[in-house]
Amino acid sequence: MSDKELKILGICGSLRNKSFNMAGLRAAGELMPAGMRLFQIASIGELPLYNQDVLDAGMPEPVKRLRTEVAQADGVLIASPEYNFSVTPALKNAIDWASRPPDQVWQDKPIAIFSCTAGPVGGARVQYDLRRILGQIWGHVLPRPEVFVGNAASKFDAELRLTDETTKKFLTDLLVGFKAWIERMSRK
Amino acid sequence: MSDKELKILGICGSLRNKSFNMAGLRAAGELMPAGMRLFQIASIGELPLYNQDVLDAGMPEPVKRLRTEVAQADGVLIASPEYNFSVTPALKNAIDWASRPPDQVWQDKPIAIFSCTAGPVGGARVQYDLRRILGQIWGHVLPRPEVFVGNAASKFDAELRLTDETTKKFLTDLLVGFKAWIERMSRK
Amino acid sequence: MSDKELKILGICGSLRNKSFNMAGLRAAGELMPAGMRLFQIASIGELPLYNQDVLDAGMPEPVKRLRTEVAQADGVLIASPEYNFSVTPALKNAIDWASRPPDQVWQDKPIAIFSCTAGPVGGARVQYDLRRILGQIWGHVLPRPEVFVGNAASKFDAELRLTDETTKKFLTDLLVGFKAWIERMSRK
Amino acid sequence: MSDKELKILGICGSLRNKSFNMAGLRAAGELMPAGMRLFQIASIGELPLYNQDVLDAGMPEPVKRLRTEVAQADGVLIASPEYNFSVTPALKNAIDWASRPPDQVWQDKPIAIFSCTAGPVGGARVQYDLRRILGQIWGHVLPRPEVFVGNAASKFDAELRLTDETTKKFLTDLLVGFKAWIERMSRK
Repeated sequence: MSDKELKILGICGSLRNKSFNMAGLRAAGELMPAGMRLFQIASIGELPLYNQDVLDAGMPEPVKRLRTEVAQADGVLIASPEYNFSVTPALKNAIDWASRPPDQVWQDKPIAIFSCTAGPVGGARVQYDLRRILGQIWGHVLPRPEVFVGNAASKFDAELRLTDETTKKFLTDLLVGFKAWIERMSRK
Repeated sequence: MSDKELKILGICGSLRNKSFNMAGLRAAGELMPAGMRLFQIASIGELPLYNQDVLDAGMPEPVKRLRTEVAQADGVLIASPEYNFSVTPALKNAIDWASRPPDQVWQDKPIAIFSCTAGPVGGARVQYDLRRILGQIWGHVLPRPEVFVGNAASKFDAELRLTDETTKKFLTDLLVGFKAWIERMSRK
Repeated sequence: MSDKELKILGICGSLRNKSFNMAGLRAAGELMPAGMRLFQIASIGELPLYNQDVLDAGMPEPVKRLRTEVAQADGVLIASPEYNFSVTPALKNAIDWASRPPDQVWQDKPIAIFSCTAGPVGGARVQYDLRRILGQIWGHVLPRPEVFVGNAASKFDAELRLTDETTKKFLTDLLVGFKAWIERMSRK
Repeated sequence: MSDKELKILGICGSLRNKSFNMAGLRAAGELMPAGMRLFQIASIGELPLYNQDVLDAGMPEPVKRLRTEVAQADGVLIASPEYNFSVTPALKNAIDWASRPPDQVWQDKPIAIFSCTAGPVGGARVQYDLRRILGQIWGHVLPRPEVFVGNAASKFDAELRLTDETTKKFLTDLLVGFKAWIERMSRK
């Protein structure tokens, strides 16, 4: 395994242009340890709302693209805010589209999660729900560390670059743990 | 209260044209006790995926319409399938759009829930999650009865009319309980 | 309703002698608004582990006592830590014993929740699970404010008296909201 | 790995003498594929209610025994009813005692779950909560198949022996999947 670069797909649960979670994903891309690369951040805002009739009429292009990206990734890194104490619609929508037959692409996929929030704390419940939902469809979600980046406005600069050293350390720990998790889960 | 007709808004968690949950909502409309009326079923498939930037640029018309419908309703009746063990994207999307300032329209709103599924059982987890999410934003979700309509294809006819007498009884019990719940929750 | 003093039962999810949650309950007792009184804190550590055979052989005395206390209370105030991301065994045990026939004493009972933790944050998940569990058995859990008292060692003195003014304010807001909630829920 | 017999510890979430879940665990012991053995069913009814003061005064013998059993097991098979829509106090108590320092024995432990219920369906929510709780403390819970044994009285005989062939098939599938899961999770 050691000579292969692990390809990581990023998914951001917020569709805002200036999303702190998107900024966190980009920062994570720069903090990845050797042998691991953020090859893409999925464009989940282009997906239609999940509707079985739409799927029956032919899989939309953005859905095909997302499914291919998840399938090709060695691991998926999700950064998401919490909306009304649970998952965002955009993220649940992406999960559901990618889970449909003929190929349920979450099957056996290593996944790591973190949350950035404008307020002092938050994200405990969205991570709680995501672990459960993704685990049930046979995704392998890294249990720890749990990373919650609160007071995000004080940790990213005006260009949304991560400047806080403690947060860099937390994200680095998450990524190092995720790399070991992917390698472990890939031994079949 | 007794001389006012309670206006109920229906929301269906599935966007399929031949949704059993939509059929269940229509059946519920016909089974409502005196003094209660299903005045509308919301068109949540027209909502864009929730995005704060979209809201900041001006509330979309379908969002305004949904919010007005929820605000005007004396109670909201939700019928929803379960997707990947939790809420459907379309339904979470509707909940989130309607919860945003300036007027969080779920505040103090009586809500009842049921689920129709093609398989023998199901819906326990989506109802579990919905109660929690809606309760946290100060919706008042009727705790019981829990109504799960399994094997739906055997209970609706080809035109998706409810034919099963036992299911009619369950829905009637739910609606009678909901009417009492609305009346109770409306006394301030 | 205004001329009757509301009787509040306290339940602490931790059995530790020096529990911050027990200290928080006592502080809440002193902060209650006029017309509301903490008449008792239940002794849930005396309950046996729930076992249907034990119940069938005759309801144990500590169970009878708890059930009487809950039944007589106008509202129940729960303070609890979070164990392994969910409810403590002692608290779930108390909930389950009190929920059994012949009289399910949580039925229609107004309930408020808060959490004290030694660490900086915590309790989001135990409150999330408690609201869901208690709501399902027809308890009426006050949705907001959510009160999480972090870094508890800095907010209570060596005798476990609450000294932090901000925390006193949060608890007071919770209790004022709870009083209004009880009065509302008691109108049938 | 193939020449080593996998040792499975059973844990039953009900303390009833005639528990269908205990009967299900015994049946599972007889249905285990070659190379896998139910070496013990833990006696979790002997544990005191979790209390940090008790732990600080010296770990009770039943707790030591449970922790040793979990630590020595190659996998843990949990059968549990659902109490008030979530985990039983006895089971959460066992999980919490076994999770405490100095050695958190759930760490990296493969776990499988099933539920037996007297009623037609049930257990969806306790399994949902268990997966989340155990996953958070780094247990590896087999995601599928989900096994719910409803109408248990018709599937076990008067001596609580499993007689229903379909149920035997479901349990066998669960155990075969669990064996593969343990082998996979043990490759580090």
